[in-house]
Amino acid sequence: MASYLVTGSSRGLGLALVSRLASLPSAQVGKIIATARQDNSPQLTELVNTSSGRVELVKLDVTNKSSIQEAAKLVEGKLQGKGLDYLINNAGLMDWSSTGLEGMDNLNDIFHTNVTSVHNVTQAFLPLLRKGEKKVVINISTTLGSFAKAEVYRQSPTPAYKISKAALNMLTVQYAQQYEAEGFTLLAISPGWLRTDLGSARADLPVETGAEKVLDIVQQTGPHQNGKFLNIHVPGWENASGNNQYDGEEVAW
Amino acid sequence: MASYLVTGSSRGLGLALVSRLASLPSAQVGKIIATARQDNSPQLTELVNTSSGRVELVKLDVTNKSSIQEAAKLVEGKLQGKGLDYLINNAGLMDWSSTGLEGMDNLNDIFHTNVTSVHNVTQAFLPLLRKGEKKVVINISTTLGSFAKAEVYRQSPTPAYKISKAALNMLTVQYAQQYEAEGFTLLAISPGWLRTDLGSARADLPVETGAEKVLDIVQQTGPHQNGKFLNIHVPGWENASGNNQYDGEEVAW
Repeated sequence: MASYLVTGSSRGLGLALVSRLASLPSAQVGKIIATARQDNSPQLTELVNTSSGRVELVKLDVTNKSSIQEAAKLVEGKLQGKGLDYLINNAGLMDWSSTGLEGMDNLNDIFHTNVTSVHNVTQAFLPLLRKGEKKVVINISTTLGSFAKAEVYRQSPTPAYKISKAALNMLTVQYAQQYEAEGFTLLAISPGWLRTDLGSARADLPVETGAEKVLDIVQQTGPHQNGKFLNIHVPGWENASGNNQYDGEEVAW
Repeated sequence: MASYLVTGSSRGLGLALVSRLASLPSAQVGKIIATARQDNSPQLTELVNTSSGRVELVKLDVTNKSSIQEAAKLVEGKLQGKGLDYLINNAGLMDWSSTGLEGMDNLNDIFHTNVTSVHNVTQAFLPLLRKGEKKVVINISTTLGSFAKAEVYRQSPTPAYKISKAALNMLTVQYAQQYEAEGFTLLAISPGWLRTDLGSARADLPVETGAEKVLDIVQQTGPHQNGKFLNIHVPGWENASGNNQYDGEEVAW
């Protein structure tokens, strides 16, 4: 009966993660805390209302430190003395600049949401995570933040997103180092290119597939994978050379 | 008679770079623009006064967009219709957190100075760089920002610095991609661990050595090295296994 907290749950991958978690047997998944900046998402509200109390909505603006503190207190109450097992830092922003770097005027904002907010949220929930049995923190990253894949994504006009996700990866590596001795598992996961508002309708995979495959990793992970950057595994995406871009392996930084 | 602009020149590596440049023959190095947030550094003032007009001081707070715009206009005037050949983005900040991530409360500030400011300065000087013959932009980075070396620097309590320099490296890679077709060369260089205020007195190398070795790279670089992350070369730093941490080679991201 592990407990989960997913940030950015009002839509996209966050909503799909919560939906998928709620569909799993309660022997595997206990309390699911779905956080969102606004608490008026109709889809999330319906998930909460049909979950028999398993999914609970907590308002959380990850970019706001006092909102984070309030949410942490609320979640502590909802867990009734138990710890939090899994924290999934999913909330994030992407830029889109048709002129590339010349039009990149939102780097600080994207960094604050995608990196600093992950740090602030994780710090605020550390006491609850320490009381949890699993001690797993997942940072939703992307292969667009990989130096090894920079040439592959050369034409993707999301310069601030790429920079922020490389930075998020370095945050993740340092979290893994610092909390390893306490039994934590901290991972960066690339969820694939998903058909969401962020990923667009042209993306590779339905968001439900991304959510399912991310959770396949999450539910099987442990200290042996601490500090790694992992790709989802979706069979059938082999290219002409036999390489699968969703191979379930470690992503090269 | 190539022209140079070095940010953060009031002390440390920036001051040493300007000093070294001023000592090189004027057939190699023409106008040297030394920028600093405050224009009251006694050492920089002396360098300017003894340079026979070769070193010029321009006030520039890299964290402030209007300061950047004013500096770009001033520099345009000083170059008298010529372009700028070399921009060295040296200004930067390091954090120090004895509790590691738990004490990291300045991530946005460090990022703004070390990454966003490099972007803003580079954009502002692009028109002058396009008019230059060399079109070289150097971003002063560090092996502390390398994922491949994260284990080596595990004990270095500078979490925000490491994150910001990984991010700076991803900025550099994207600049290299975007401006390659215009003949630009954009590099990240690790200047070594230097005895400066930032590096401390316990560091490996005198700052003069760092400056000399960085300029050895700068003066020999060109489009064949565009987008690379380079280490300085200082013979004699081989360890017991024969590896030199200052080997002059590419640093793995």
